[in-house]
Amino acid sequence: MLRMVVLASGRGSNLQAIFTAIDANHLAGQVAAVISDKEDAKALDHARERQIPALWVNPKLDDGKAGYERRLLDAVMAYEPDCIVLAGYMRILGSDFVHQAGKPIFNIHPALLPSFPGLHAQAQAIRYGVRFSGCTVHFVDEGVDTGPIIDQAVVPVLPEDTEDTLAARILSEEHKLYSQVLALYSQGRIRREGRRVTIDR
Amino acid sequence: MLRMVVLASGRGSNLQAIFTAIDANHLAGQVAAVISDKEDAKALDHARERQIPALWVNPKLDDGKAGYERRLLDAVMAYEPDCIVLAGYMRILGSDFVHQAGKPIFNIHPALLPSFPGLHAQAQAIRYGVRFSGCTVHFVDEGVDTGPIIDQAVVPVLPEDTEDTLAARILSEEHKLYSQVLALYSQGRIRREGRRVTIDR
Repeated sequence: MLRMVVLASGRGSNLQAIFTAIDANHLAGQVAAVISDKEDAKALDHARERQIPALWVNPKLDDGKAGYERRLLDAVMAYEPDCIVLAGYMRILGSDFVHQAGKPIFNIHPALLPSFPGLHAQAQAIRYGVRFSGCTVHFVDEGVDTGPIIDQAVVPVLPEDTEDTLAARILSEEHKLYSQVLALYSQGRIRREGRRVTIDR
Repeated sequence: MLRMVVLASGRGSNLQAIFTAIDANHLAGQVAAVISDKEDAKALDHARERQIPALWVNPKLDDGKAGYERRLLDAVMAYEPDCIVLAGYMRILGSDFVHQAGKPIFNIHPALLPSFPGLHAQAQAIRYGVRFSGCTVHFVDEGVDTGPIIDQAVVPVLPEDTEDTLAARILSEEHKLYSQVLALYSQGRIRREGRRVTIDR
């Protein structure tokens, strides 16, 4: 059983997809807690509906980013997770957090990294004029969306696409890919050596 | 009939694919000349075999890059092309060349741009650890592989891939994609407005 703490800032659709995968026995895991930097994140509601601890860690106290991340790390580690899963968590984790966590941190990004890191990846893709985009699950390192890639999925970008239609097409791949990767990880089938990630399928 | 001047530095496999597409009536075009910066480029041999003018423009005279590109541009424009096709041409065209040519310049790059521009794109892809790569046909602008994208094709990157095996998989897509794009262009079905390229399929 993979014990996960999920960090989320938004509607939590990837969190929902993880719940669905657990319910369907596709992912032998357990969400130990959902933690958000937004008091009103829908992701917290989804957790509460399942009687899963749902915590808000306030990023706007006067202890700065370092203080916030220390409180966040304490909150996460209290649940003794095997891994930390970012699901629409909209802040950059500092390198202190990443190193002190000492656990794998997963993220999913709505582009074929290294193209279009950072915010508004789907709008970036449309503006650039690529014919294909997709999503990337990667281990988090100190950079912004620069960590070792675990897996990717591709979608076409259509001539009539807007940011929203492309985001929807990518999101449905995200929902599948993230749970698949977490399931493979829970089965010990993902190995990382430096930047190189090997999946034993 | 699309009159093309092809610039090439190497073995000319994309040039061969263009010849094949012309022979099969998939591309209503004519290679008016092949011009290389390498005296011994195989691409020049392929042109000579077809009685097509094959020119070497020496980049190592003492007139600098500006002088070389002026001679190159004169050589190209003497054949009154409708467009200029880069097929493994291993130099960066200066912005003077791009603007003074006044004709569309096509390039094909062995990666899903904007990922992995510049040299050794396939090795870059393997080193980064992406799960998909491919090729991109784009209009050339003043940057390095930054011009408006016309079309792309995707290939998987396999765990056992080396630079060579990935390059071979991408190359077979290049051979199809480049001729397709040139055929669509010859039919007036590619329109460019700024960065936005529309294909009327």
